[in-house]
Amino acid sequence: MNTSRLTGALDIGGTKILAGLIDQQGDLLARRRIETLATRGAEEVIARAGAILNELLWEVGADVVALQAIGCSVPGPLDSKSGTVIFSPNLAWRDVPFVELLHRQFDVPIAIDDDAHCAALAEWHLGAARGTHSAVYVTISTGIGSGIIIDGRLYSGAHGFAGEVGHITLDRNGPPCSCGNAGCFEAVASGSAIAARAREAVMSGQKTILSAFHENPALLTASEVMQATAAGDAVAGQIIETAGDFLGLGLAAVASAFDPQIIVVGGAVVQANDRLLAHARAAFVARAIPPLGSLVSIVPAVLGDESALRGAALLVTARMEEASHV
Amino acid sequence: MNTSRLTGALDIGGTKILAGLIDQQGDLLARRRIETLATRGAEEVIARAGAILNELLWEVGADVVALQAIGCSVPGPLDSKSGTVIFSPNLAWRDVPFVELLHRQFDVPIAIDDDAHCAALAEWHLGAARGTHSAVYVTISTGIGSGIIIDGRLYSGAHGFAGEVGHITLDRNGPPCSCGNAGCFEAVASGSAIAARAREAVMSGQKTILSAFHENPALLTASEVMQATAAGDAVAGQIIETAGDFLGLGLAAVASAFDPQIIVVGGAVVQANDRLLAHARAAFVARAIPPLGSLVSIVPAVLGDESALRGAALLVTARMEEASHV
Repeated sequence: MNTSRLTGALDIGGTKILAGLIDQQGDLLARRRIETLATRGAEEVIARAGAILNELLWEVGADVVALQAIGCSVPGPLDSKSGTVIFSPNLAWRDVPFVELLHRQFDVPIAIDDDAHCAALAEWHLGAARGTHSAVYVTISTGIGSGIIIDGRLYSGAHGFAGEVGHITLDRNGPPCSCGNAGCFEAVASGSAIAARAREAVMSGQKTILSAFHENPALLTASEVMQATAAGDAVAGQIIETAGDFLGLGLAAVASAFDPQIIVVGGAVVQANDRLLAHARAAFVARAIPPLGSLVSIVPAVLGDESALRGAALLVTARMEEASHV
Repeated sequence: MNTSRLTGALDIGGTKILAGLIDQQGDLLARRRIETLATRGAEEVIARAGAILNELLWEVGADVVALQAIGCSVPGPLDSKSGTVIFSPNLAWRDVPFVELLHRQFDVPIAIDDDAHCAALAEWHLGAARGTHSAVYVTISTGIGSGIIIDGRLYSGAHGFAGEVGHITLDRNGPPCSCGNAGCFEAVASGSAIAARAREAVMSGQKTILSAFHENPALLTASEVMQATAAGDAVAGQIIETAGDFLGLGLAAVASAFDPQIIVVGGAVVQANDRLLAHARAAFVARAIPPLGSLVSIVPAVLGDESALRGAALLVTARMEEASHV
């Protein structure tokens, strides 16, 4: 184990901090996951994350000077250039100078980007999109986000918002979206959309085991719809198929825009259920413009819950290389 | 006039051939437009286009050896790498080896791309997007196409189909699209969509001067809806506003995907009517995710019907530079 030059990685989520140390060969030497309360303030969460990195350095027997850089995945929207989290609904953060706060503990280059962008980098370097020139990683969890890889580099757009495909309108008269509009990709195909349809099914009196999960159907989750589907519940199965149809429609929009070699689909909702992706693939082939339906592969992500952490380390390495070329 | 080194440019459309000669300073030395019949075969159209280039060379007093390269704008979808038009509904061409056929007349580098890609290059180098790093050009005519400029280069995607934003679904239950799906951007906001709504309005007996244009309302065109709007017809005005609302929704999808500095909107339908773009802008601000609604400018194209021709010349120059760097 060579611990002379290490990259720190942080993946901050609504309810967890995942921290890791990566060596020059790209191997993950140590990692730790702790659960956090979303109600903690930004300063406290960032100080705790820094403390875990120091603990990991101690654990692998490395000196603090071995730490060369830190990459961080944080839920957005954020400004990766200034290192500021503009607004993170999951963390209830607004205008948090993340990089500045972490610099209080570490005098090394620090880069941040959102979880979908970091995971896209990881799947391209190490995962399902390895060896391609262009790829889009789409993550389906509570919301829908994406990261765009063009010629091996993360494409962030003019203001850091490229790949906000969750807010492409797919169904103008569809259900309301958290962004204030209606029928966005995220509003019809995300975990939240699945949960909303389950709630409606129970409240409209459909015969489904979903009605037994909670007294208050507003508490139903996408994960419970997956469970009910696995148990053979027809209503739950139909909800997953509807979400899969919309997922395919959204992926067709992504393919029409970017024409990537491959679309990698990840996130908790997809990982939990093969049926969703199978339906999405069929809908994609039916809805994409003819050549793209057969030319663009839709594949599941392979790095699981480590993708954003691994991508965060790759992010800061890429940013340092870019800076040295300027 | 320096005619020692010239670039030829061709813009082939469903009913016209536009040809030009550009000198090393980028000045258009000569141009000629002829009307063609869409029913002519590909070999005949391409031979005629080549003949016009030769006539223009003669006209400016240049020798045929002065012609260094030819760039061509052709309606797609096409394979710019192999130089083949896969399918062009406007020209009724299928699998036409365009570059090979034009090479029979000219032994110089020839590049082709679709009209939207060529026009995007032109608006970036010479027009409304000049000086930006990233821009999307969206053309609204019979259909809807786009060209994506990233870091000053045309982004074509893995298979040449990047920017096929006309086939992003905006209204899943919307009207049928020529691609076989329903509710595509092109099916709700293009000139064809405007004409279809005019036909419906007349056939459903709405009180509008549009009913006086043709005995058969299937012959109504977007241009006639513009005329009726200018004459104060309320039904026609409402059709334009509806198209503008959908145009704004589609541009919001484009902004969410690419986050460009600027979106340039061109094409015959937009050029003909300020009201359409005004409505589109308002809808864009209302529907784009919050930061992008104010960050991304929506501006009209400035190069008019010369944009694809100028872009075709820039295209072949860019391809030759790229080839020399490999």
